[in-house]
Amino acid sequence: MLKRLEKNQYINGILSGDRIVLGRAITLIESTLEQDINLGEEIIETILPYSGKSLRIGITGVPGVGKSTFIETLGENIITEGHKLAVLAIDPTSKSTKGSILGDKTRMETLSKNPKAFIRPSPAGNWLGGTGHKTRECVLLCEAAGFDTIFIETVGVGQSETMVKEMVDFFLLLMLAGAGDELQGIKKGIMEMANMVVITKADSQNEQNSQLAKQEYEAALHFMKFQENGYLPKVLTCSALKNTGIYEIWKEIQNFVGITKANTFFENTRNTQQLDWLHAIIQHHIVREFYENPTNKAAIEEQKIGILASKISVIKAARSILKN
Amino acid sequence: MLKRLEKNQYINGILSGDRIVLGRAITLIESTLEQDINLGEEIIETILPYSGKSLRIGITGVPGVGKSTFIETLGENIITEGHKLAVLAIDPTSKSTKGSILGDKTRMETLSKNPKAFIRPSPAGNWLGGTGHKTRECVLLCEAAGFDTIFIETVGVGQSETMVKEMVDFFLLLMLAGAGDELQGIKKGIMEMANMVVITKADSQNEQNSQLAKQEYEAALHFMKFQENGYLPKVLTCSALKNTGIYEIWKEIQNFVGITKANTFFENTRNTQQLDWLHAIIQHHIVREFYENPTNKAAIEEQKIGILASKISVIKAARSILKN
Repeated sequence: MLKRLEKNQYINGILSGDRIVLGRAITLIESTLEQDINLGEEIIETILPYSGKSLRIGITGVPGVGKSTFIETLGENIITEGHKLAVLAIDPTSKSTKGSILGDKTRMETLSKNPKAFIRPSPAGNWLGGTGHKTRECVLLCEAAGFDTIFIETVGVGQSETMVKEMVDFFLLLMLAGAGDELQGIKKGIMEMANMVVITKADSQNEQNSQLAKQEYEAALHFMKFQENGYLPKVLTCSALKNTGIYEIWKEIQNFVGITKANTFFENTRNTQQLDWLHAIIQHHIVREFYENPTNKAAIEEQKIGILASKISVIKAARSILKN
Repeated sequence: MLKRLEKNQYINGILSGDRIVLGRAITLIESTLEQDINLGEEIIETILPYSGKSLRIGITGVPGVGKSTFIETLGENIITEGHKLAVLAIDPTSKSTKGSILGDKTRMETLSKNPKAFIRPSPAGNWLGGTGHKTRECVLLCEAAGFDTIFIETVGVGQSETMVKEMVDFFLLLMLAGAGDELQGIKKGIMEMANMVVITKADSQNEQNSQLAKQEYEAALHFMKFQENGYLPKVLTCSALKNTGIYEIWKEIQNFVGITKANTFFENTRNTQQLDWLHAIIQHHIVREFYENPTNKAAIEEQKIGILASKISVIKAARSILKN
């Protein structure tokens, strides 16, 4: 690992939009050394007033749906409009291998060379509770570095989607046409979190299928969705390869932003997300502390045996454990 | 309130299937007096070996779906087959009014007069964490009293369904035909918990609509459902008033039981439910204790202000609160 910078070098670098320093600040945030954690927190505190001004978009979809190409094409469109884009990819497998870092850069080749883009895998992280709280910190750092659009990308097959939903303004689900069966691959609940479903690869022979899939998903969304935000979730089709339908997606996202900013849902959600995050960290921490206590651990194991043998009721077992 | 009985009077009464004593034991369980709680726990411990042998069925549906008539007709069918049936109705509104107790008895008039049936509203209860843990205790009492089939009924519009799902073997959702819009009234997530959807009032002019609804729900279930249990959720239609389709529902429930007992899903779920309940109580209790602490309360309120004003990061705020 590179030498640690001085606090001010991090801060000045971030605030001046230096992508190299931003990357090193994220590396610092990822560190589990006490010293790094403290420095990281100080940096976050300092840049906090400069954060929060981006549009945060969650993008998910199963492997093979064409996520990289989609992000690359949508990203280029957004940058052409004058925006700066950061892509944080949450890869549950990246923690151990580090391989995915290279992988991410390779698979979004054009975007990764664009000076107005910043691409980075984000560690899932679980220190001090709140899975993914490091991703949240990465978002803050990117915002302070002037990135006004943030994509948070997940693989769409695990628990990370719920986590991402809790940190973004807009949640976009990528799907393939010919899908009746495809849908089965999407964990229940993910679909109903989506503000938008985009059917990818809607080109050449696939166009008709995509229209059918669009209707299917519209019906499914109709079944599932509650509109607390005043916005009816949309189903759109696109071909990232041919750059068709991409502009419409971006316009529709802006339409969502317009509606939810006007009815204050946007800001309310942000505030709620902050406080939910606070409570998640607190609760995770106290629960973990309880379970990590060896006396409690032993008591729980003992009571479990009694419960499964119908020798003690759950209530009494819980009481006994809590007495410690 | 009636005079408290002796511990042995409760136990002997319950084990001999005395519905009056069973009712008084449930009243005792509902009590929040320390003395009653202790006696209640002792009773539960004693009857525990006699519990667990029933089939626990959750039944939910929005008001107007015909839940009482359905339960009454299905109940009569089950009793005719030689079973003993207890119906526990979780009514979130019943805590304050007590009115629903009478209401329940009135609306299931035939069943409530049947000596092989026991009908009782169950308090939601929230003492010592785990919402609904008193309902679980009521289930144990009813089982010890020889009731081999237990219905746990909810109104289908709130959070109690998730709770009920966690304490039953089979979850049944009642729906009305002509439903596209009807479905909107069902909270998201309830549908995907269902092992069976039953379309009620499928008689006379409504029969064709019911068949259409059946197809719609089958499609919706196909979209949503994962089959970890080896059982594909079914959609059935019935008329409780005319007693048509009811027998088929009961046979299909038994089919589910056969499949899930053979593949051990049934027992595994029961065990998981027990341990989940234990952890739910523990976690609820320690979190509540933390939040009820006045020092923590004050610290949280103070940090919230800082967070919403972007003066402190959530991580740092959480750390500061947890330091207490």
